[in-house]
Amino acid sequence: MKGTTLVVNCGSSSLKLAVFDHQYNRLINGLAERLGTPSAYAVITGNKDTIDISGDSTHRGALATLIKRFRKRNVLGLPPVAIGHRVVHGGEKFTDAAMITPAVIEAIEACASLAPLHNPANLTGIHATGELFPNVPQIAVFDTAFHQSLPEYAYLYALPYEYYQQWGVRRYGFHGTSHSFMLAETARLLNKKLENTSLISAHLGNGCSITAIANGKSVDTSMGLTPLEGLVMGTRSGDIDPGLFDFLAGKGISAEDLHHDLNHKSGLLGLSQQTNDMRTLVASADDGHRLSQVAIDVFCFKLARYIGAMSSSLSTLDALVFTGGIGENSARIRARTVEHLSLLGLVIDSDSNLNHGRLREHHIEHTNSRFPILVIPTNEELVIANAALESVRNAIAPPQSITTETS
Amino acid sequence: MKGTTLVVNCGSSSLKLAVFDHQYNRLINGLAERLGTPSAYAVITGNKDTIDISGDSTHRGALATLIKRFRKRNVLGLPPVAIGHRVVHGGEKFTDAAMITPAVIEAIEACASLAPLHNPANLTGIHATGELFPNVPQIAVFDTAFHQSLPEYAYLYALPYEYYQQWGVRRYGFHGTSHSFMLAETARLLNKKLENTSLISAHLGNGCSITAIANGKSVDTSMGLTPLEGLVMGTRSGDIDPGLFDFLAGKGISAEDLHHDLNHKSGLLGLSQQTNDMRTLVASADDGHRLSQVAIDVFCFKLARYIGAMSSSLSTLDALVFTGGIGENSARIRARTVEHLSLLGLVIDSDSNLNHGRLREHHIEHTNSRFPILVIPTNEELVIANAALESVRNAIAPPQSITTETS
Repeated sequence: MKGTTLVVNCGSSSLKLAVFDHQYNRLINGLAERLGTPSAYAVITGNKDTIDISGDSTHRGALATLIKRFRKRNVLGLPPVAIGHRVVHGGEKFTDAAMITPAVIEAIEACASLAPLHNPANLTGIHATGELFPNVPQIAVFDTAFHQSLPEYAYLYALPYEYYQQWGVRRYGFHGTSHSFMLAETARLLNKKLENTSLISAHLGNGCSITAIANGKSVDTSMGLTPLEGLVMGTRSGDIDPGLFDFLAGKGISAEDLHHDLNHKSGLLGLSQQTNDMRTLVASADDGHRLSQVAIDVFCFKLARYIGAMSSSLSTLDALVFTGGIGENSARIRARTVEHLSLLGLVIDSDSNLNHGRLREHHIEHTNSRFPILVIPTNEELVIANAALESVRNAIAPPQSITTETS
Repeated sequence: MKGTTLVVNCGSSSLKLAVFDHQYNRLINGLAERLGTPSAYAVITGNKDTIDISGDSTHRGALATLIKRFRKRNVLGLPPVAIGHRVVHGGEKFTDAAMITPAVIEAIEACASLAPLHNPANLTGIHATGELFPNVPQIAVFDTAFHQSLPEYAYLYALPYEYYQQWGVRRYGFHGTSHSFMLAETARLLNKKLENTSLISAHLGNGCSITAIANGKSVDTSMGLTPLEGLVMGTRSGDIDPGLFDFLAGKGISAEDLHHDLNHKSGLLGLSQQTNDMRTLVASADDGHRLSQVAIDVFCFKLARYIGAMSSSLSTLDALVFTGGIGENSARIRARTVEHLSLLGLVIDSDSNLNHGRLREHHIEHTNSRFPILVIPTNEELVIANAALESVRNAIAPPQSITTETS
């Protein structure tokens, strides 16, 4: 099936678009930010000029403007054959991508209390593209779906069981598209079948999460009910002592204020008192700023602690995999983290690490390492495009019927 | 120095006493519970009859009654030579046991906001024994002191740094007396020096915590600012997603109510909806009660996850050690936990495990295990007695002066 696939990642005040051809080559990217404000702007990646969209700064307006610009560059002259949407929370309802129907929209709405900032924004994107391309099938690809294979003992918190029954309080996990891409890429690189591939996948970007994948299935992950739990992130705390809420209540800090601090003023930013950006932080540490080094040390220690924790879900390990902006680009962070993991038998090769594994087909482990260590660039849009196109193909030619594919 | 040592563990509504002779033989135990209520009672261990103390149900009253009974049994006919008190929180002030002086009492009071239920109760015990034995030196032994060796990157949360500066928000860790006893016993059993001994110590009782000890120093531990963080416990949740507070606020659950549930209605009790007692829980699971088995599975998985996490703080491992009521007595829990740890190389021997290592000098590992696994009964009172007596000896004969000890 020829034609293009449009990938949409719609946040509460931002919009990211990517267009792929039928061979999954990326044709163009677009980005709009500060939507709904007078300073709203859009930009086409690779083009320095920003586009003023303050005249119509809605998601729909930004989308229309970006698509018009795409057409000027001969992309999307014809409508796409599929539109894939990133949807953050699929609750327990979605274990895979889903062709969008009124029932699916209703189910996404029903999960909104689990992701009150994200799911409504995702739906805004779905409605906006639906109006612009009324006859194109749309597919929802969920951040949580890949983790629906977690065993019950790994997804339940030790809370009153009625919290789970009544409100769905459990570990869901996020970054599923990235972790499933790591699985596919690791299997490809190691020449293994997906169902025989076991890895620990560390996605380290603005948000950070780590997943244990046993024989092709997610079996444990660091993010939980929300994307706040787990590793240290740019501005998010990750794990804390749950007694902190009561302790700080005694100091006059409300739960609401603490929740805000945990999301926006913690993590690398909170510890360093400087920045949530790892590159800036490393530079600051090199300039002798003590708390910047402390923030790096806490980040790496917590990550190592979680790699150790994930090992308890695996009986074999084909690779430890680093991805995401930090995971792909920071040799320092990878080295400092793996230093903690000698008991597990992980050893990094300095030279391979410094060039991000580029000269060794993504490998950065030392010959003495018990297990391979890989650096793999993530490509979440590609996973979404692929899932969207596969859904459309399956809808046209259901797997059970014998047909000749036309692609 | 001959004579006895009295050990006092004073809770908000309970009081535990133990008396040791100068060779650390335990002479007698006493317990008083429900203090301050009309149903207050005391009991001398090994004696079935409870003593009605509702006439004076204060800590001081219970203490006087128990001491009187001890004397009837020819214990404490003479005042003890030292009184050791368990004190829960020593903050960052105490890295070791401390002879109680007005300044020390002030410092314990200053830490009270970190342990609002425990430290004031501990002080009540100190004042009551001080009145009863006015001329006997008293020594505070802190639950937190052993963990003051944690590196900065292990004790800091990824919170705004001013939380630490202003309010002392950091990981303190608890059960220090038990973990330090595990260190001493492991070193003795393996015939190693303390400073060359590295272990993972899992204290599994009513409260549960795990500690990584590298070369004789605590370097990571699962309890944090408060004893709520970390492992699944009888009624405590251990770790949760910190986003839970905000999520449940949206369902009308206040932070205060949630904090109460996390402490008193969660853990094994919350998941199983049956009991916080592991023996009862195992029986219930064997009777086919599904959620009891789920609670056991979550407990063991979480423990295994933390053993993996602790491994990231160690470059060598002399032993994984189980202690506390559950750790010492539940072969099932140990077996189920270690099943998760094959990647780390830990393998249990079924027979040795079933008899709690009693036929193999505490060892329960299989010959294929990369590391020894030990079961060691804890004895926190003994650690306190020992610390108290050592403090008194050092006060009489400071280490720098050359004297002949009289013991």
